[in-house]
Amino acid sequence: MEAAAGATKADRTVTPDSRKELRGKFITFEGIEGTGKTTQIELLQKYLHSLGIQSVVTREPGGTRLGERLRDLLLESAVVPVSDRTELLLMFSARAQHLEEVIYPALRLGTWVLSDRFTDASYAYQGGGRGIPEAFIHQLESLVHGGFEPDLTMLFTADLKTAMQRVSKRGDKDRFESEPVEFFERVQRVYLGLVENFPQRFCVINAERRVEEVAAEIQQCIQSRFQLSGSQGAS
Amino acid sequence: MEAAAGATKADRTVTPDSRKELRGKFITFEGIEGTGKTTQIELLQKYLHSLGIQSVVTREPGGTRLGERLRDLLLESAVVPVSDRTELLLMFSARAQHLEEVIYPALRLGTWVLSDRFTDASYAYQGGGRGIPEAFIHQLESLVHGGFEPDLTMLFTADLKTAMQRVSKRGDKDRFESEPVEFFERVQRVYLGLVENFPQRFCVINAERRVEEVAAEIQQCIQSRFQLSGSQGAS
Repeated sequence: MEAAAGATKADRTVTPDSRKELRGKFITFEGIEGTGKTTQIELLQKYLHSLGIQSVVTREPGGTRLGERLRDLLLESAVVPVSDRTELLLMFSARAQHLEEVIYPALRLGTWVLSDRFTDASYAYQGGGRGIPEAFIHQLESLVHGGFEPDLTMLFTADLKTAMQRVSKRGDKDRFESEPVEFFERVQRVYLGLVENFPQRFCVINAERRVEEVAAEIQQCIQSRFQLSGSQGAS
Repeated sequence: MEAAAGATKADRTVTPDSRKELRGKFITFEGIEGTGKTTQIELLQKYLHSLGIQSVVTREPGGTRLGERLRDLLLESAVVPVSDRTELLLMFSARAQHLEEVIYPALRLGTWVLSDRFTDASYAYQGGGRGIPEAFIHQLESLVHGGFEPDLTMLFTADLKTAMQRVSKRGDKDRFESEPVEFFERVQRVYLGLVENFPQRFCVINAERRVEEVAAEIQQCIQSRFQLSGSQGAS
């Protein structure tokens, strides 16, 4: 029923065939809490700007007004009961809005998108952390963004103790930060499994070094992946 | 990965095999705005009580603290942009929580559940109204509640003009109520298509009659479907 209307709407979805109209690069940043992603994303944006590349910085959950509302709902310390499967569905709801409202439009304009977390985080947190079967997550991924995936993913790794100490210093913990260390062990294990499965897409960043060293490694990774050089303006 | 943990979590889902542990009946009420569902659900609960049957009244989106928060987000007059696919995903997020927190636990106890809207509404509103392909909705349905479905669905029908007039009298319109009449024509058409496809599950209720007449027809439908009689206490 309503096949005609359905066909029109389906065209909005980015399929692998229409991937080439997305001229910007989509770079995601993954890893457990307390590995300094936020700082490095800002530094990368400055570096790209110095190369003449426009970029937007965004995050998940979040990135849109709806996404930020859902982020508040999901991260506040368990005031509202949310089951594991509901949490996963909400992450993908926020992601659908993020894609349609922010990510696809920017990439169509040739702007690069730097996102603090994306679907890998669903596999790591809701899959590894909460124990939701991988196949279930994969089906949602297919429904929400088909074959679309990041051009490059920076996985920040750190010793769990070091990362947990950084988080403790921030003060109030959110719903994820309050999880025990075993939760983050499972999360990081899934992240490393994704690197094994998709080595082409990942740069693994050892985040236990000085900010400048980490930034330099990220720039090097970007340069080699996209054939950029520090001295040239990029298209 | 994480297969062992995954298997444990998957057991929470109600599959058709475990359907028999749900001893209560699940009755849903569907139809466009302004057909008097709320009043009739209350009357049915009183009637069931008179037969010795415990029931809970609930609604979608809503029914849980999370669901009511999402309902506010979805129904407020387009303050926060929400795409059609996001709207559908949010409806199923709220539904997952509703099932785990309210519907399954009540049915396990033998309590009947009377829900103002359920998944048929996703086909009617997001499918018919918004034009999302039926297959997309069906995949989400399978993910979120597998083969679980209502024991009985009361579809309230009314002339669109009559229904719209009732809604106008209520004052401020929400995001759905502000849609043009053609939207509700598509919604009602999908509902009637569902009745054709699943005639066993539906009672179609002509809602353009006096409250007592409609209530009597609903009671008759319940009696014949579940072999109850007005004079006996039910198990």
